[in-house]
Amino acid sequence: MAARSARSGEFDLIARHFAPLATSRSGAFGLTDDAALFGVSDGADRIVTTDALVEGTHFRPDDPPDRVAQKALRVNLSDLAAMGATPEVYTLALRIPEDRNDEWVAAMARGLAADQARYGVTLIGGDTVGGAGPAMLAVTAIGRLAHGPPLRRGGAAAGDDVWVTGTIGDGGLGLQVCRGEATGLDAAQRRFAVDRYRLPEPRVELGPALVGTATACLDVSDGLVADLGHLARASGLAAEILLADVPRSDAAEASSFPETERIVAGDDYELAFTAPPDRRDAVRGTARKTETPVTRIGRMRAGSGIQVLDRDGAPVPVARTGWRHR
Amino acid sequence: MAARSARSGEFDLIARHFAPLATSRSGAFGLTDDAALFGVSDGADRIVTTDALVEGTHFRPDDPPDRVAQKALRVNLSDLAAMGATPEVYTLALRIPEDRNDEWVAAMARGLAADQARYGVTLIGGDTVGGAGPAMLAVTAIGRLAHGPPLRRGGAAAGDDVWVTGTIGDGGLGLQVCRGEATGLDAAQRRFAVDRYRLPEPRVELGPALVGTATACLDVSDGLVADLGHLARASGLAAEILLADVPRSDAAEASSFPETERIVAGDDYELAFTAPPDRRDAVRGTARKTETPVTRIGRMRAGSGIQVLDRDGAPVPVARTGWRHR
Repeated sequence: MAARSARSGEFDLIARHFAPLATSRSGAFGLTDDAALFGVSDGADRIVTTDALVEGTHFRPDDPPDRVAQKALRVNLSDLAAMGATPEVYTLALRIPEDRNDEWVAAMARGLAADQARYGVTLIGGDTVGGAGPAMLAVTAIGRLAHGPPLRRGGAAAGDDVWVTGTIGDGGLGLQVCRGEATGLDAAQRRFAVDRYRLPEPRVELGPALVGTATACLDVSDGLVADLGHLARASGLAAEILLADVPRSDAAEASSFPETERIVAGDDYELAFTAPPDRRDAVRGTARKTETPVTRIGRMRAGSGIQVLDRDGAPVPVARTGWRHR
Repeated sequence: MAARSARSGEFDLIARHFAPLATSRSGAFGLTDDAALFGVSDGADRIVTTDALVEGTHFRPDDPPDRVAQKALRVNLSDLAAMGATPEVYTLALRIPEDRNDEWVAAMARGLAADQARYGVTLIGGDTVGGAGPAMLAVTAIGRLAHGPPLRRGGAAAGDDVWVTGTIGDGGLGLQVCRGEATGLDAAQRRFAVDRYRLPEPRVELGPALVGTATACLDVSDGLVADLGHLARASGLAAEILLADVPRSDAAEASSFPETERIVAGDDYELAFTAPPDRRDAVRGTARKTETPVTRIGRMRAGSGIQVLDRDGAPVPVARTGWRHR
């Protein structure tokens, strides 16, 4: 908390930049005490997740700091959404490289302030540390399970449909644009793709609304193929998807980004989930209510692994399953 | 969670080293899902804190990794204790420098396993990231407030006694020994002091037991003078302490460590707290029950700041109020 930043002998950044982010919760004590009070008198179970971003690995040094801070928060909100939880509070441990000025920190705080308003989440704990080496942001987020048990990865049954939200591959395309590797895109499409890479939109409305309807769920961060592989393994099944049905943006369509790259690229932060075929109307109704685009892309079946099929039902070889974020 | 480590394209360390730390809580899902379930059906309010340690700033590169991991956890447990909360769960974001081998991580996990058994706390979320630069451990800990409202810094009243646990200045003395600067100590005293620096003992029993008795509390991490200054400011009062009454270890007594250095050195992780004089028996009874040594060192009075007095009641000048941890 506040005292920790003074302890580093460098700056008292928390009081200036981060304490204002904590004012809407009295239990945060303005980040001036040893810790924060987190009231749970409603008795609803909570979901906790932690994810760290490191400069040079998860974001680029030239990425705008407000966006970097927002991404650090949003990847955690995406994890909460994947479990069916509504974001509530978060903590931030921020490592500030020696060569950054006050404005770099102020920009991060501005980005977080905007996202707090957008997602209804509040900072309740912070620590800043200086020194040599790259920037790092470690966020721990806590969300509320309002409607029932959490959505897990392992709940899919054979015959369940496989669904995804939004469009797939835009994060990877945006990274290609940042690297100067993408071709075929106009200026608006380039901007769109870079925004998708820098600033994911966690599906915080849909995730909680899927509790009771979806049988399994996770967020697409490692790439659709790798993540559906996690879901299939946890469920003891195989996943089968139709490549042509995997939704893509206009930008992805216009680009030179190969289809087999698109479905292994990471950083989409969409949700992938399963539900029995007799709940298709329920899924579509929930999607409409939360204004979230959803697309059915395949099904779960007995077996293991993930199979990608072309229009004729022939397997498409997908080589790469890892994903590097910069 | 688990998927994140794979994402870094480096190792799947979480599954091997950290998932075993999560087995005692079913809601941690073995760290294999997007996030963990945190049940709060008891309705007791929780306390949340986050603190990060960076190599080169908060610990030395030659500190044993098991101790480093334990210290990262314990400084957070100390914050929980200072608020009156009993440790329950924690998350860890670990940045692993490129030059560390698997054994370095395994040693950290062993240290955490020992502390989990000691403090009854369980890992429920983890993230590991690689890359260049120094090691960093960001821990977020959650504790349970079983007995009432949290202990705050700002609750002291004029006339309250000032108490501390344990002995003061051993963390700073241990750092001096590590630096080769301390003189006058025998081998056992040197070992004692280094252990105190590397491995604080958070007062997890006493803190919660002081709820209802102490009027204000915090942990001594920035140095006694600086931390009592925080408590005094938050309470709108002055703190007055008698230097001769500030408890010191045999090692501190034998050393060349000046008394005025001892009370500004940090890393003690003892508790400093206040209580009305008519609760002295209650404080001593609670201390006995939790087997925690406590010493009365001064009192709160109208005014501001902190005054250190010698045996004759004359002010002792204390210059340094900052503290560097390495």
